[in-house]
Amino acid sequence: MRYPNSRKTYQKEALHNASRRGMSFETDINLSNQYYLRENRAVVHKKPTPITIVKVDYPKRSAAKITEAYFKIPSTTDYNGIYRGKYIDFEAKECQAKASFPFSSIHPHQVEHLRSIIEHGGIAFLLIRMVVYNIDYLIKVEDFLEFYDAKTRKSLPYEWIQEHGHVLHPGYVNPVPYLDLLDELYFEESYEKNAKTKAQSQ
Amino acid sequence: MRYPNSRKTYQKEALHNASRRGMSFETDINLSNQYYLRENRAVVHKKPTPITIVKVDYPKRSAAKITEAYFKIPSTTDYNGIYRGKYIDFEAKECQAKASFPFSSIHPHQVEHLRSIIEHGGIAFLLIRMVVYNIDYLIKVEDFLEFYDAKTRKSLPYEWIQEHGHVLHPGYVNPVPYLDLLDELYFEESYEKNAKTKAQSQ
Repeated sequence: MRYPNSRKTYQKEALHNASRRGMSFETDINLSNQYYLRENRAVVHKKPTPITIVKVDYPKRSAAKITEAYFKIPSTTDYNGIYRGKYIDFEAKECQAKASFPFSSIHPHQVEHLRSIIEHGGIAFLLIRMVVYNIDYLIKVEDFLEFYDAKTRKSLPYEWIQEHGHVLHPGYVNPVPYLDLLDELYFEESYEKNAKTKAQSQ
Repeated sequence: MRYPNSRKTYQKEALHNASRRGMSFETDINLSNQYYLRENRAVVHKKPTPITIVKVDYPKRSAAKITEAYFKIPSTTDYNGIYRGKYIDFEAKECQAKASFPFSSIHPHQVEHLRSIIEHGGIAFLLIRMVVYNIDYLIKVEDFLEFYDAKTRKSLPYEWIQEHGHVLHPGYVNPVPYLDLLDELYFEESYEKNAKTKAQSQ
């Protein structure tokens, strides 16, 4: 996890270095979400880190200060929002391993949350950054669950990710352009329809 | 805001007192959300309280301890989720005043967030508990914005709330049954259709 202080570091780096080396996946996704928000294309936010607050000080004439708190295991994913009227929900993970993405990186709670989102008609996916290869993948939760539920392995082999994952092509202002992939994967029909209507009217 | 310790108080009270007096609106909404989740009717969660973490201790052999953190102004609402395939988003407020609900209780950020949810095709509303009258109201953001954007007043008069708000009828296991109101307000057509289909098949 990276915290507010790291943002400063990031901005400094960004000025000196256009490459994304050293930037966290979370920072990149937040940049993309801000970009989408500015363009009014989608409303997606990272949820705050869940914590249990134990002690709060209320010093006179200054802001309440939390002096004891602990990180909680999240019961949902980090990101959700709305795109083209649809509910979208995803979890993002950086994977340092070369050969596979271990299931231990995702809490079972989160998997069940993503499963129920699909059952309720939403769009759910994983974003995985394979750090060693410097490639980001989008994996539909439907595909992920097929492998996960089989329970034959405790990780997604990299070959599987290459076969079933969808590669994200980073841009500078939009480092994790996941909405473009959603268009292809979930809205193709409506895109074709639009294209047809346009063609007919010409 | 009420924090983890207050939950204990609540549970104790619940054992001795079936009335909802003294329980926070947030606690009640969380109970309803849990109920809806158990019934697999919707997936709606409260977002964690946004905080800025400044200092974290990593004591050996025990959990990371946050020793300095501050509350942040939320840029979105407290609740969002999926219902009948639709993205839903709402903010909940307790109102202690008798005559009106002051706009100062909602951050302008949150109003703009709710506005953009509607623009993107989602369902957005406010839940307001009028503490003095012990009545909970659901207000569609469309209706709220009409009044808010007029900028003639700095609060919603209680008469306006009575006229434009929709009363929630609390149950014991489901103290804030807002989905029933959403059915009426947003899904009536499909309900009528279902009723017709049923009638025809008899």
